[in-house]
Amino acid sequence: MFECFEAYITPKVDLTKEQLRYMCSLATVRKVRRRQLLVKEGEVCRHKIFISKGLLRTYRLKDDGNEYIMRFSPENSWNVDHESYNNQTPTKYNVDALEDSELLLWSKEDFDELIAAIPAIRAFSDRIKESSYDASQERVLMNISYTAEEKYEDFITSFPDIFRRVPLHMVASYLGVSRETLTRVRQARFKQQKDN
Amino acid sequence: MFECFEAYITPKVDLTKEQLRYMCSLATVRKVRRRQLLVKEGEVCRHKIFISKGLLRTYRLKDDGNEYIMRFSPENSWNVDHESYNNQTPTKYNVDALEDSELLLWSKEDFDELIAAIPAIRAFSDRIKESSYDASQERVLMNISYTAEEKYEDFITSFPDIFRRVPLHMVASYLGVSRETLTRVRQARFKQQKDN
Repeated sequence: MFECFEAYITPKVDLTKEQLRYMCSLATVRKVRRRQLLVKEGEVCRHKIFISKGLLRTYRLKDDGNEYIMRFSPENSWNVDHESYNNQTPTKYNVDALEDSELLLWSKEDFDELIAAIPAIRAFSDRIKESSYDASQERVLMNISYTAEEKYEDFITSFPDIFRRVPLHMVASYLGVSRETLTRVRQARFKQQKDN
Repeated sequence: MFECFEAYITPKVDLTKEQLRYMCSLATVRKVRRRQLLVKEGEVCRHKIFISKGLLRTYRLKDDGNEYIMRFSPENSWNVDHESYNNQTPTKYNVDALEDSELLLWSKEDFDELIAAIPAIRAFSDRIKESSYDASQERVLMNISYTAEEKYEDFITSFPDIFRRVPLHMVASYLGVSRETLTRVRQARFKQQKDN
């Protein structure tokens, strides 16, 4: 489990062996089964989660009973609700596993200790936050300016691996497009590819 | 001009008079007329901009000729394209003035100097970034999960002042809803209010 994390972090952050050992010593290992709920709406997001293996989904359950997917978190990525984590307030989101997954969890207290002790980890954490923010802005732009066809194409190009691993209705939910529209878009694309 | 900024920053950041004077000494004052372009797509976003008076708009011009509005920046708020500013890469966005505006500009070099010298300004800048990120996530959720009616209601409630100051087609562009749909939503709302 820690080998995955070491292979991920080593090229990204300049850490001594001792610092890496310290970082790993603060993490809790957790295995979750497919469909298992990890964080529930109304709870406080108390951990930064690194996904060593598997796939998590962050979604909002609306009053109309529909699920709206905010994020897919595959292996070698992080999952955290920044707003809930930073302010230690209840989250609006649920997090569950779409595949059997292996995770490393750092509590806020431990992670705060870590970034206070090791500036390189703070800088790395800041970089992750910056790029999450940029990606979020990019997604807003996509949401307001792309057609359903463009959203679909963009998703396939940006996340080909996730596209293969999740059902189409979840892609539709992530894109904010109805399942019917996305099915139509996909069929038109198949037809076009066959015709060419 | 600096009085507006002082009134804004004083309750938010604990600065000595000297620090405040230093901060203001690094700012450039700029006045722009309504419709004047301030940042052009392809340029690098070189400044953090504080709006003392007026209203700016950040938008993307798509190949189809349509404008998609990412942000309205009224008085007492900041305007910056983080991705372009942080990486000093070309921005995808245009920024123009929707009203005659008065601005304070800090170059990246000067602002970097400022946050290195005064930790309270760094902490404040980090807080602004955190809440911009949270707002961006909130907007993604709205984009993918709200109906046109809910988007319209949310905008009126969240930004009543901006709603009064910009034409409806710009609200539609910000929300990612067609002008026709938003006109229909507004008419239905008027009718409902009259009937009640």
